[in-house]
Amino acid sequence: MNKKTKVNAAILIIGNEILSGRTQDTNTSTLATWLNSIGVKVNEVRVIPDVEKTIIDTVNVLRKENNYVFTTGGIGPTHDDITASSVSKAFGVKYEIHKEAYKILENYYKPGEFNEGRQRMVWMPEKAELILNPTSGAPGFSIENVFCLPGVPSIMKSMLGGLKNKIVGGEPILSQTISLRTVESEIAQSLTKVQNNNKDVEIGSYPFFHAGKLGVSIVLRSENQSKIDICNSQILEFIKQKKIEVVDR
Amino acid sequence: MNKKTKVNAAILIIGNEILSGRTQDTNTSTLATWLNSIGVKVNEVRVIPDVEKTIIDTVNVLRKENNYVFTTGGIGPTHDDITASSVSKAFGVKYEIHKEAYKILENYYKPGEFNEGRQRMVWMPEKAELILNPTSGAPGFSIENVFCLPGVPSIMKSMLGGLKNKIVGGEPILSQTISLRTVESEIAQSLTKVQNNNKDVEIGSYPFFHAGKLGVSIVLRSENQSKIDICNSQILEFIKQKKIEVVDR
Repeated sequence: MNKKTKVNAAILIIGNEILSGRTQDTNTSTLATWLNSIGVKVNEVRVIPDVEKTIIDTVNVLRKENNYVFTTGGIGPTHDDITASSVSKAFGVKYEIHKEAYKILENYYKPGEFNEGRQRMVWMPEKAELILNPTSGAPGFSIENVFCLPGVPSIMKSMLGGLKNKIVGGEPILSQTISLRTVESEIAQSLTKVQNNNKDVEIGSYPFFHAGKLGVSIVLRSENQSKIDICNSQILEFIKQKKIEVVDR
Repeated sequence: MNKKTKVNAAILIIGNEILSGRTQDTNTSTLATWLNSIGVKVNEVRVIPDVEKTIIDTVNVLRKENNYVFTTGGIGPTHDDITASSVSKAFGVKYEIHKEAYKILENYYKPGEFNEGRQRMVWMPEKAELILNPTSGAPGFSIENVFCLPGVPSIMKSMLGGLKNKIVGGEPILSQTISLRTVESEIAQSLTKVQNNNKDVEIGSYPFFHAGKLGVSIVLRSENQSKIDICNSQILEFIKQKKIEVVDR
């Protein structure tokens, strides 16, 4: 067994627009997929409003319980962008102008366009490290194990590449999906047996509707491919006995 | 001032498939939109794995801090469906066969089809009240202020109608959106002034890209339409001065 220490993270989505239902969050799935690919397991996601005390308290809980915390939202130029000042308070450090960020934005904008609103985006916690933004200039930042990213999905996604060297993951979490033309209740008992025989593999069962037909996707997850393979063959065995069709999905 | 007591809720999404990034959650936005329409403000969303202790602890925190808690996921027939048993433990009550749910499913399935897997779905916390399922038979349930719904989005959505009489909301939260052909930094200062003059209205500012053009949506939210109207006119005033174009979105 060459188990590495498991590395985990929490995602903190900051923004009233998600809580009101107005905006569909997609950052969770983008971040979670990326984190999984580098061996970081997402333990928990929270969505909270643009309220200072809530941000401070939640950041302080999550950063103690997880190896990494990724926040999205609230780092733009308007009055409701309070993530940077709140994170400064969570860490008990000064909220100040980040000189490098200032230079980046001074160069990014045309002369005269680096106005007061935009200057707000260079205020960060003391000693914050920048997360560069290849899309729209204004950087995100990290302080200790907390990484603050913007809420706009395309911009957020474009900044993940620059983070890779800052995050140390464990073994990548591998997964395999077997999709079946069946319903969950047909396979529930057999699947329970397979789970009991393979405690190290996380087995999920997810019903789907596709092209007017019902089906179930079984998802196997583990850091260890051979354990997934064993699990997979046990599932294929009971599927064959039950004459259940395997489908693409 | 005819302020009603504010009514709030937490949404708890239970499922490894969201945390792995495999599945894009849409239940949050469906639930939040519906709750807003009946005067319930969503305070917080959490996404947690199918882990008993985590479910118990989270349900117990959220049900004390909020008027209502809505869970989705984990009430199907397979081994990873542990929401009902975990919620029973959270409340310290028996996990038992719900007789009415049993009858519903016995009638729903053809003779011989109400198998062991499906019978698992009638186990609920003692004295749970059913939430009827017009789509696929198996009911959800509520216990005190906690409402447990399935994870499949179309089924979850179809069950909300049956909940309306069980949830007592406050004043509906009204909202108005003004979309502008501008960038946030152009309006940040003026918008801060409007927010300072209208503390009871929640003003959000959200950049968007649409048809290759940048824009900003300003969202005004309050239980009071006349307060929104005042805020709206103050915004339209500075927009006119700045010669910013209002766009549809």
